[in-house]
Amino acid sequence: MFKFELKKEDQATKARLGLITTTHGQIKTPVFMPVGTLGTVKTLSPEDLCELGVEIILGNTYHLYLRPGMDVLKEFGGLHNFMQWDGPILTDSGGYQIFSLGTDYRENMPGNLVKIKEDGAEFTSHIDGSKHFFTPEGVIDYQLTIGSDIMMPLDFCPSAEADKKEIEKAVDVTSKWFKRAWEYYEQESKKIKNTGALFAIIQGGTHKDLREESFEDLNQFPVFGFAIGGVANAGESREKQREAVDATIPLIPKDKPRYLMGVGEPIGILEAVERGVDMFDSVMPTRIARNGAVWTSTGRINLRNAKYKFDKDPIEIGCGCKACQKFSKGYLHHLIKNNEILGMRLTTMHNVHFLIELMSRIRKSIEDGNFKEIKANFLKEFSKIKGSENRF
Amino acid sequence: MFKFELKKEDQATKARLGLITTTHGQIKTPVFMPVGTLGTVKTLSPEDLCELGVEIILGNTYHLYLRPGMDVLKEFGGLHNFMQWDGPILTDSGGYQIFSLGTDYRENMPGNLVKIKEDGAEFTSHIDGSKHFFTPEGVIDYQLTIGSDIMMPLDFCPSAEADKKEIEKAVDVTSKWFKRAWEYYEQESKKIKNTGALFAIIQGGTHKDLREESFEDLNQFPVFGFAIGGVANAGESREKQREAVDATIPLIPKDKPRYLMGVGEPIGILEAVERGVDMFDSVMPTRIARNGAVWTSTGRINLRNAKYKFDKDPIEIGCGCKACQKFSKGYLHHLIKNNEILGMRLTTMHNVHFLIELMSRIRKSIEDGNFKEIKANFLKEFSKIKGSENRF
Repeated sequence: MFKFELKKEDQATKARLGLITTTHGQIKTPVFMPVGTLGTVKTLSPEDLCELGVEIILGNTYHLYLRPGMDVLKEFGGLHNFMQWDGPILTDSGGYQIFSLGTDYRENMPGNLVKIKEDGAEFTSHIDGSKHFFTPEGVIDYQLTIGSDIMMPLDFCPSAEADKKEIEKAVDVTSKWFKRAWEYYEQESKKIKNTGALFAIIQGGTHKDLREESFEDLNQFPVFGFAIGGVANAGESREKQREAVDATIPLIPKDKPRYLMGVGEPIGILEAVERGVDMFDSVMPTRIARNGAVWTSTGRINLRNAKYKFDKDPIEIGCGCKACQKFSKGYLHHLIKNNEILGMRLTTMHNVHFLIELMSRIRKSIEDGNFKEIKANFLKEFSKIKGSENRF
Repeated sequence: MFKFELKKEDQATKARLGLITTTHGQIKTPVFMPVGTLGTVKTLSPEDLCELGVEIILGNTYHLYLRPGMDVLKEFGGLHNFMQWDGPILTDSGGYQIFSLGTDYRENMPGNLVKIKEDGAEFTSHIDGSKHFFTPEGVIDYQLTIGSDIMMPLDFCPSAEADKKEIEKAVDVTSKWFKRAWEYYEQESKKIKNTGALFAIIQGGTHKDLREESFEDLNQFPVFGFAIGGVANAGESREKQREAVDATIPLIPKDKPRYLMGVGEPIGILEAVERGVDMFDSVMPTRIARNGAVWTSTGRINLRNAKYKFDKDPIEIGCGCKACQKFSKGYLHHLIKNNEILGMRLTTMHNVHFLIELMSRIRKSIEDGNFKEIKANFLKEFSKIKGSENRF
């Protein structure tokens, strides 16, 4: 089952409050979804995720297809059971991974790991060099095996440097693939109980006309939600992100959830919520954490920095996460510097807690009608730390 | 403060039940002490250790001296406060690390990283090649800074391949260093409140006469306990371990705790408990866990093995650890194979839980007067898994 309820719209901005209901539970939006690439949000257990207040996690179809493989997930009756996470799971389609791995997917380019064909994408595994072929139907099948609550269709993600012609082709291929994906999904839904909801992914880069074309193609089907694709590709600036979101959001009907794929840092989230986005994901919070970078209300710091060696304060005084409740920056500095797993785990907990708390504050501010004020205050505080340490 | 109470002696064997009291809490013996090399038992938090029933952990003076360094530990008021562990801590002296890092510590040998001098050991850091000098007095100082509840004196650990002449020299040097260590310790104890207890380390390899000589030298001082050194050096067989323990235990007065350094796998523990050993430590349970090797009642298995790919059972049915309560061997196989931190954490929890449970059963059997039977049953079961997987 899948239901989206629009609970409130902000007056001063396009921010909205919503509630998604899935077979595995409810999700208050705007929401941040931590990424569990290989059936685990790196360093955390499902119990940890619950304690952190995480309501939904993301899984990567591409990675799960390669490891542990569909045979294993079939045997275990899906990812929920395999990893022992009872909450909702959203899976991407693998499109992004396939194309971000393909150094250049254009015909006859050297180092090409991906080939676009009429009926899907051929790619080479980044693990063992084996060849694979993803079709729109196959990708639905994989996500049915995974047991995803929210599924994404196979899309063609152009690189960040693509010219308009490339992006036009991406829109065209994505639309053709989506038609096949939807038809297959509808057919399978009749056979399988509790099928997850299929979203559509709007492509078109920063081009308003292409975003419109993409949306019109996809909107012919009664999809459950819309994702904004091709925004978080490596190299995209925040300005380009804004342009792409601005060109897309007005197209999407209000009663459908809007998911900005691959964006998951505080400023990007706040700016997209203001523009009407409901859902976010990114590996960034957990990835930078493992490298010692953590967010505070005054900006980002890196615990590897020698200045924290003797620091007895927690990352943030008053923060309720397990790292801040007990440990000093000095201890975390020591752990991170020496690649101790406990350090990576504690910084991961802090960053996930930070974003979950931010989302909670965002939702409350929309409820209270002061989102714009809260956003401005946050951004003002968040830029207080000066220098290269505070990079976002 | 430090107190050892001998609670009960087994009739059929030399096994004993005891209770150690330190400033940071009590320890029921026989006890296994997980090793927290760098101020963390790898993958686990102090909270995890408490939940696992761990009563004391071990820290390595050598490693803590190099990282985070004594300046940091001084600033934080010791290791307990730095790592937020409120229970007892035992620290080794660094002797073992210095000599196991020195490829050959004999004069003028190539690749030599250690030089034995009259008043201490000069060594080269394995991290940055810097030169350091450990003296008997310095090592006491470091452990006073760490705030150890149980301290070890600097000793000379000959390699496993050493001939009798080498071991004789080791006994001699260890005794001379101990005299200086004890005198310095006594002097400092008068100045500092709640100084930890200093043990002595008996050397002598498998030679009864050298063990006796070593013991006699050390027993001139009212030490708090005796450690049996030079047993767990790489290359020592279980047979040699037994010989060394048999040559040493009868020397030690009953009212002093006996600590077998570096032994911490089930069979070695059972055999040494039978011979009258009270305390154990080893990195083995946590190190092999991170590589996927876990203990079960029928022997050791390695979760990397492809045969666990589809296995829905936990490592051990009925086991109360967090890994077994929730996760399948198939999922753990997947995590370990892909170097996921959650996998290493869960297998570590399992192995620590396994040993803590084993120690608890051992203590109960001594209490109940059936240790010999329990040991025989355990060993019979523990050899059931055949083949290379079950290596211990």
